[in-house]
Amino acid sequence: MSTGTRRRLGVEERRQQLIGVALDLFSRRSPDEVSIDEIASAAGISRPLVYHYFPGKLSLYEAALKRASDDLAGRFTEPHEGPLGARLLRVMARFFDFVDEHGPGFSALMRGGPAVGSTTTNALIDSVRQAAYEQILAHLGVGEPPARLELVVRSWISLAESTALIWLDGRRVPREELEVQLVQSLGALLAVSAAHDTETAELLRPLLKQEPGDGPFTDLVTRLVTLAS
Amino acid sequence: MSTGTRRRLGVEERRQQLIGVALDLFSRRSPDEVSIDEIASAAGISRPLVYHYFPGKLSLYEAALKRASDDLAGRFTEPHEGPLGARLLRVMARFFDFVDEHGPGFSALMRGGPAVGSTTTNALIDSVRQAAYEQILAHLGVGEPPARLELVVRSWISLAESTALIWLDGRRVPREELEVQLVQSLGALLAVSAAHDTETAELLRPLLKQEPGDGPFTDLVTRLVTLAS
Repeated sequence: MSTGTRRRLGVEERRQQLIGVALDLFSRRSPDEVSIDEIASAAGISRPLVYHYFPGKLSLYEAALKRASDDLAGRFTEPHEGPLGARLLRVMARFFDFVDEHGPGFSALMRGGPAVGSTTTNALIDSVRQAAYEQILAHLGVGEPPARLELVVRSWISLAESTALIWLDGRRVPREELEVQLVQSLGALLAVSAAHDTETAELLRPLLKQEPGDGPFTDLVTRLVTLAS
Repeated sequence: MSTGTRRRLGVEERRQQLIGVALDLFSRRSPDEVSIDEIASAAGISRPLVYHYFPGKLSLYEAALKRASDDLAGRFTEPHEGPLGARLLRVMARFFDFVDEHGPGFSALMRGGPAVGSTTTNALIDSVRQAAYEQILAHLGVGEPPARLELVVRSWISLAESTALIWLDGRRVPREELEVQLVQSLGALLAVSAAHDTETAELLRPLLKQEPGDGPFTDLVTRLVTLAS
């Protein structure tokens, strides 16, 4: 867009441009602190023109959140090839890329941002969680999960969310360490469940057999055995 | 209160009675579905009199939430005696008692209830999380936690929250099973962190040495060893 030539944008094109500008601002500072004036200025248009495309800040915020949600959900997609641990590691790296890129906006959203309680916002957050959940089940090769497996996977997703939020607050632990540990934590939580439930144990057995010696799950077991001795 | 004798209550006494009645209703059905009329009727007073004590439903909701938060935070208190695993099991049992007693209200609150986004509500939720966090650190015998330990404990707290929420949605897994597994999950997550970090490992070593053969941590290791063989 650096042609230097000014031209009139079509309605949908202008909406998309505004969403991009707003998302960028909402990602760099808490959305509460971003004004419509600032969005208008960053987009190079007047404040009334912003209102022509979006009735208010909430609708622009929701549109930006929709784009971010689609982006995040897309990052969970990972080919079903190779060992599970390595696949999950790649997904975690992309998840932390996203969190890194949208830090302040992600924090504000998850801790209660400007649109908190809005049905649209809650539905978007839930849809991303659901996408993450379905992707993980697909990688585990499970179509209809037993209640215990569903519980482990869904609660691990909130563990990953809060880990990312705590990481953003000061970044006192390198993200690469957390990416590995989240994958290993999923393994550990599944192991706790499998320790009590044969069905979960039987689901996991074939997956673990495919894990190579240099994968994150083998790494965890090796480290724990070393620690215990 | 079953004396059958009607008497005028003092202002603070009436407020406390209304909070109790409201909390009971908010615990049994989603707070969104509970009306001021219903609260007035359950308290045996007129609707205008409710408004005399509380300017609106939100302020009554916040007062009820304050009472519930104090109650929950109080349940985390556990004498520093005996092995860690057994202490945590008792805390988890009281946590699930609370979740069980306040089911619909707890779900609504955590998923975005009527007062979502209210500063008071968020502060109350955070204060309960903070109380849980400080209690766990005290049981671990840690005053100023390293960043990695803080991360594990805080993210485990959100794992416990979401486990309770998922449990409430259908109660498809016995709560006793989840209570044990949450304690074991904390152990497993701490182990994952210790596997990467000497400081965490050194903090945990003396605690594990005090664990008896019939505690939840030994139980987990025994089960995993059996499963692996």
